Amino acid sequence: MTAIDPALIAFCDRNEASFLGELEALIAIPSISADPEHRSDVARCCDRLVECMAEAGLDARRLETGGNPLAYGEWLQAPGQPTVLVYGHYDVQPVDPIELWRSPPFQATVRDGKIFGRGAVDDKGQVVMHLAAVAAHLRTRGRLPINLKMVVEGEEEIGSPNFDAAVQRYRSEFAADVAVISDTAVFAEDVPSLTTSLRGLVHWEITVEGPAQDAHSGYYGGVLRNPLEALATILASLKDDGGRVAVPGFYDGVTELSAERLAELDALAYDEEREATLLGVPSLWGESDRTPLERMWFRPTLECNGMWGGYSGPGSKTIVPSFAKAKLSARLVGDQDPQHVRRVVTEFVERNVPAGVRVHVADGGAVRPIVVARDHPAVAAAARAMEAGFGRPPVFIGTGGSIGPVATFDRELGLPQVLIGLGLPDDNIHAPNEKFDLRQFFGGIKTIAAFYDELPRADA
Amino acid sequence: MTAIDPALIAFCDRNEASFLGELEALIAIPSISADPEHRSDVARCCDRLVECMAEAGLDARRLETGGNPLAYGEWLQAPGQPTVLVYGHYDVQPVDPIELWRSPPFQATVRDGKIFGRGAVDDKGQVVMHLAAVAAHLRTRGRLPINLKMVVEGEEEIGSPNFDAAVQRYRSEFAADVAVISDTAVFAEDVPSLTTSLRGLVHWEITVEGPAQDAHSGYYGGVLRNPLEALATILASLKDDGGRVAVPGFYDGVTELSAERLAELDALAYDEEREATLLGVPSLWGESDRTPLERMWFRPTLECNGMWGGYSGPGSKTIVPSFAKAKLSARLVGDQDPQHVRRVVTEFVERNVPAGVRVHVADGGAVRPIVVARDHPAVAAAARAMEAGFGRPPVFIGTGGSIGPVATFDRELGLPQVLIGLGLPDDNIHAPNEKFDLRQFFGGIKTIAAFYDELPRADA
Repeated sequence: MTAIDPALIAFCDRNEASFLGELEALIAIPSISADPEHRSDVARCCDRLVECMAEAGLDARRLETGGNPLAYGEWLQAPGQPTVLVYGHYDVQPVDPIELWRSPPFQATVRDGKIFGRGAVDDKGQVVMHLAAVAAHLRTRGRLPINLKMVVEGEEEIGSPNFDAAVQRYRSEFAADVAVISDTAVFAEDVPSLTTSLRGLVHWEITVEGPAQDAHSGYYGGVLRNPLEALATILASLKDDGGRVAVPGFYDGVTELSAERLAELDALAYDEEREATLLGVPSLWGESDRTPLERMWFRPTLECNGMWGGYSGPGSKTIVPSFAKAKLSARLVGDQDPQHVRRVVTEFVERNVPAGVRVHVADGGAVRPIVVARDHPAVAAAARAMEAGFGRPPVFIGTGGSIGPVATFDRELGLPQVLIGLGLPDDNIHAPNEKFDLRQFFGGIKTIAAFYDELPRADA
Repeated sequence: MTAIDPALIAFCDRNEASFLGELEALIAIPSISADPEHRSDVARCCDRLVECMAEAGLDARRLETGGNPLAYGEWLQAPGQPTVLVYGHYDVQPVDPIELWRSPPFQATVRDGKIFGRGAVDDKGQVVMHLAAVAAHLRTRGRLPINLKMVVEGEEEIGSPNFDAAVQRYRSEFAADVAVISDTAVFAEDVPSLTTSLRGLVHWEITVEGPAQDAHSGYYGGVLRNPLEALATILASLKDDGGRVAVPGFYDGVTELSAERLAELDALAYDEEREATLLGVPSLWGESDRTPLERMWFRPTLECNGMWGGYSGPGSKTIVPSFAKAKLSARLVGDQDPQHVRRVVTEFVERNVPAGVRVHVADGGAVRPIVVARDHPAVAAAARAMEAGFGRPPVFIGTGGSIGPVATFDRELGLPQVLIGLGLPDDNIHAPNEKFDLRQFFGGIKTIAAFYDELPRADA
C-alpha cells in the first residue's frame, strides 16, 4: 500500500488547529450566491480566499467574470511536469429555514468531532483541504511535485452561469492536464469512494395568475379558477403514480446501465429501511422498478423545490389567491440534453394550461450530466492516495448532485477529471446544520497531499 | 314611495365630515383578529367603538367573552315597542400582500369619492352607518322609534369562535325581536339589494411531512417523495376536471333551487365576460352546468386559500423540502352540516395519503349556511327604506359570503333577520385596496335612519 510522506503527515497533524481556524473564518462570510443582498459578502469571501491561497504559497489573484469573481492561485515551478487544475467553490446555499439550525450557520461550531456551519463541507471545507495540502508540500519541501492551479468560483450554487465564459476568457489560467474537483461525498463513513458520474441540472419557475388581486372566497368562490389548485393540477400531471415523469420526451437520452454496473451497485451496502429512518420518512419512494442507488445516481428527476401562494399566516384568510408560484428543477443523466429537457417541460406546461388562469414558465440552467473515465492514470493515483489516507481502497460510486464546471471541463477543455470528495452522506448540505466530519476533513488533507505525490509525473 | 324625514336628512348631510372622521379613526386601528400580534389593537378598537356608541347616545359597555370582547350599546326607552338587535364586527382581515396597497391600509385615504383602508366597508364603515343613523334620530328628535341594541364583535373574520357562548352568557343583552346585519353588499351600483341567503364556512390545514429537514435534491432526488408534489396530488384529487368536489358526501344536504328562484337569478343582469375582465382572469370557471350566480350564492365551494413549502427566495435552491402546507376552506349551502363536511374532507385526505410521506389534517369552523325569510315585515320595512334611500326598490339576492353570527341568531335565538348591507361587489374586501364608496356610505346612513322609522311598531 502507498505510504504518505511522514513529513507531510507531521505537518498536517501539527497544523490542524490552524486549518480549522481558516475554515471557520471562511464560514463566517455569508457568501450566499442566490441572494443579491449578499453580493458584497460573496466578493469579500473571494478576496479572503485569494489571501488564503497566498498564505498557502500560491501566486494568487482575483479573476473578474460577468458575475461573481473567481479566486485564482497557481504554483508553476515544476517545468515539464503535468499541471493539475483544482476546482472548488466559495459560494454557499441559502440558510432558511434558519430556525432549524442548532448553532448559527455563519458562526462555525465544533460539536462531537464535526464542524457545523453553512459551507462547512459544501464547499469551503473541501477547498481548505487543498490549501492545507499545498501548504504541507510547500512548507515541508519548498515545492510541489506537479504544477498546480486552483480555481474557486462563486456561482456554483446558482448553476455557474458565468463559468463557461470565464473559461473562454482565461484560457491560459485554465490550461491544464487534469482537473481535480473536491465537492462530492464518499458512499459512507469508512467507505472511501471516488465519484465517476454526476447528474446535470436545469430549472423552471412556473407562475399561475388568477384574479388581479386576492379575491374574497365567499363572493367569488365558484366563479374563479383557484391559481393554487391550478398549479397543483399542473404539478400532479408531471409524474405518474409510479413516480415516472409523464412529460413526453423527458427521458430522451437517458441511458440504461450495463448489467456489470448494476451488479456493482448491488454490491454496495444500501439499507433502504435504515435510510428512510435516517431521513425521517415512512419509506423511500420513486420508480418502483429501479433500485434506490440507480434512482439517485443514474435516473433523472423532476422535483418541486418550492411552491407558494395565498395566505400562510396564523389563522385563516378566506381568499381565492391572485397567484401561485412553484420552483422546479430536474437532475439529468446519460446523454440528456439540458436545453431539450427545459423545452419539453416548458412546452408541456404551456400546452396544458387549466381553463380560467394564465400560466407563465421561465426556465434556466444548462448543466450537462457527465461520466468520468475510470481508467485514467490520475483516477488510479487518487485511488492510491485515498487508500493511503483512509486504509481501504475506494469504491467507485455515482452522485446525484450536479457540478456545472465539471461538465465545462469535460466539454470545453477536454480535461480528464478526478472527483475526490470527502463529504459524508449525512452532512446536511443545502439544509440546516450542514457539517463536515473532522476525521474526513483532516484525513482528506493527508489524502490530497498524498494525491499530489501520486499523480503521474513526466519523469516517472 | 316612502319619504325620509327631512330633519334626519338634514342632520346626515350636515355631519358627513364627522361620520367620515369617525370611520377614519376606526380604520387607523389595525384590529386583525387572525394575528395574535394584533391582540391589543383588537381590544383598543373595541374600546374605541364603545366610546363611539356612547357619543351616538347609546348606553354602551364592553362585554367580555372567551376571546375578543364585544362592543355593546343599547337605547331601551321605547317601552312596548319592538327591540332591534344590530350586529356588526370591528375586526378586519390581514393586509398582505401589503405591497399591492396604493395607500397604507390603516391610514384611510379618500380618492375618487371612495374611502380606502382595511375595514372601510368590511365592516367598520357599515357599523358607522348605524352609529350615524342612531345619532341622527337621537340628536334631531331626542329618541328612537324602536328599542335598539348594538353588538359589534371582534372575531367575525376568524369564524366567530366565541360568539355562540357569548349569546348564551349575555342572554338579556341579546334579547330582541329582530336582528339587523349590515355586513353585505348590493348586487351592483344603482341596484339596491337585500340579501336573503348566506353560505356557511369551515376550514382545514393540511400538513405533508417529508424528510426531517430539507434534503439535497441531487443526493436524495429519486428516493424521497416530494411533500409539495404529494400535497399537489392531494389537492388535485379534491375536484374533478369540471370543478365539482370529488369528496364523497361533500354535497350531502345541498338543496337544488326552485325553477322560480332560478328564473329570478336569470333576471339579474350578470355579464360573465365583463366580470372576468374586472377580475382580471381570462374566463370565469366552475361547475359548467350551473350559472355563475347560482355557483356563487347557492353552490358549495372547496377552496385552497394558501399553500407553501420549500424555497421561495431569489434564484434557485435545489432541495426536496421537508414539509408542505395548505389552508383550505369550504363555503356551505342549503342544509349542509359543517361538522359533516369537515369530517368527510378530513377523512378523504387521511384515507388517500401518498406513499412516502406523512399527512396531518386539522379542521375547524362551524358556520352554518342560512336562508332568510323574505316575507317578514322587517324585511319589507328594509325594502321600503332602501327604496327611499336609493330611489329604486331592492332586488333579493344571495351572497356567497358567510357571517357566523347570522346563523347563531337564526339557530340559537330564533330571530328573524334583515341583511341590509351597502357594500359594492368591487370593494376589494379581504384584498388590497379595500374601499367603501361614499355614495353608498352616506346613502346607507339615510337608509338605515329611514329603516328605523319603517320598522313595524306596536302602535302601528
